[in-house]
Amino acid sequence: MGKLAVDISMSLDGFVAGPSPTLEQPLGEGGEGLHEWALVLESWRRPHGLMGGETNASTEVVEASLEATGAVVMGRRMFSGGEGPWEDDPNADGWWGDNPPFHVPVFVLTHHARETVTKDGGTTFAFVTEGIEAALEEARAAAGEKDVHVAGGAAAVQQYLAAGLVDELHINLAPVLLGSGTRLFDAQGAAQPALELIGVVEAPAVTHLKYSVLDRS
Amino acid sequence: MGKLAVDISMSLDGFVAGPSPTLEQPLGEGGEGLHEWALVLESWRRPHGLMGGETNASTEVVEASLEATGAVVMGRRMFSGGEGPWEDDPNADGWWGDNPPFHVPVFVLTHHARETVTKDGGTTFAFVTEGIEAALEEARAAAGEKDVHVAGGAAAVQQYLAAGLVDELHINLAPVLLGSGTRLFDAQGAAQPALELIGVVEAPAVTHLKYSVLDRS
Repeated sequence: MGKLAVDISMSLDGFVAGPSPTLEQPLGEGGEGLHEWALVLESWRRPHGLMGGETNASTEVVEASLEATGAVVMGRRMFSGGEGPWEDDPNADGWWGDNPPFHVPVFVLTHHARETVTKDGGTTFAFVTEGIEAALEEARAAAGEKDVHVAGGAAAVQQYLAAGLVDELHINLAPVLLGSGTRLFDAQGAAQPALELIGVVEAPAVTHLKYSVLDRS
Repeated sequence: MGKLAVDISMSLDGFVAGPSPTLEQPLGEGGEGLHEWALVLESWRRPHGLMGGETNASTEVVEASLEATGAVVMGRRMFSGGEGPWEDDPNADGWWGDNPPFHVPVFVLTHHARETVTKDGGTTFAFVTEGIEAALEEARAAAGEKDVHVAGGAAAVQQYLAAGLVDELHINLAPVLLGSGTRLFDAQGAAQPALELIGVVEAPAVTHLKYSVLDRS
């Protein structure tokens, strides 16, 4: 069985989305700065049908992550495009376009049952209404020996962390301050797991940090 | 004139102190984990009269920082030992011992005027009641061509950032989750300055991150 890893971009001040998200700007004000490091990569642009782009230290990180990942779990807001009124539309089709960057089965945590959505390039979105453990079980079955990644949003990550199910945190720390928005680590108050820093990759406009979660209670 | 740099240890979830600080535990519950990377260094232990310790990638970072720093600014809570009832005692003598680790003039932001305190090893604590700009002016005069460091706490850092006075952020990112406590970057809501990542040093139990503050309004 593979690992369960959180893989998410975070601002230096701890946000995974800026304030006031809209359908056009699902990551909120300034939130696009979280992913600037990825948008310049040739390996990101090509599968999105975009020309150009560069190869840098992030390329290997992204490719290794794609190679290791057999399935993805995400919250419904991340599927449907940030927080906002549309998130209550159970038929919202998401904002990932025809060829999402996952290329594996994605399991979406939701309260609204619906048919699986099949996209190009190997990405499917299946909707799981029975909670985080059921979604993980389905994702593990789909992933086989590969890892399962929790891609966000913050609420999904917090639930998996609180349940003691996360093996690793892969934080892409973006050199931006958002000031407000959605925090990855909202004040929990409860006992937190110990971490061990197991990898650092310095790249343009990002620091890729990898932590092992040591004691999960 | 040297730079104004914030130099502070922060948890992965953004805290510079844990919850429930006391005089015995001024960094709050779990807060000692923020500085574990420093406590193991021979270069930290020797000036504190402690035997042993190791030399690792942090050693050079600490020594370069000491070499570059001509004066330090800190908030009164940091001088007197975290948040708590004792912080309102204007004569509290701080918790830094006879030979504090600064070895340069330190300027403490406070509302209570008092005589300068002279410690061993070149550290003095002078008390500035006229606000952050006055403290910076005094610190710059003391530092000469060297840099001035804001050592904390969070409130002092936030004030200097909001005033557009900070040139660099030196964040020692500790691989710990504190869950609650004092955030370095509390929700500001206001426009934040752009950052550029200018240096990453991977070391045991810490990632030293250096950012340049690009546009200060």
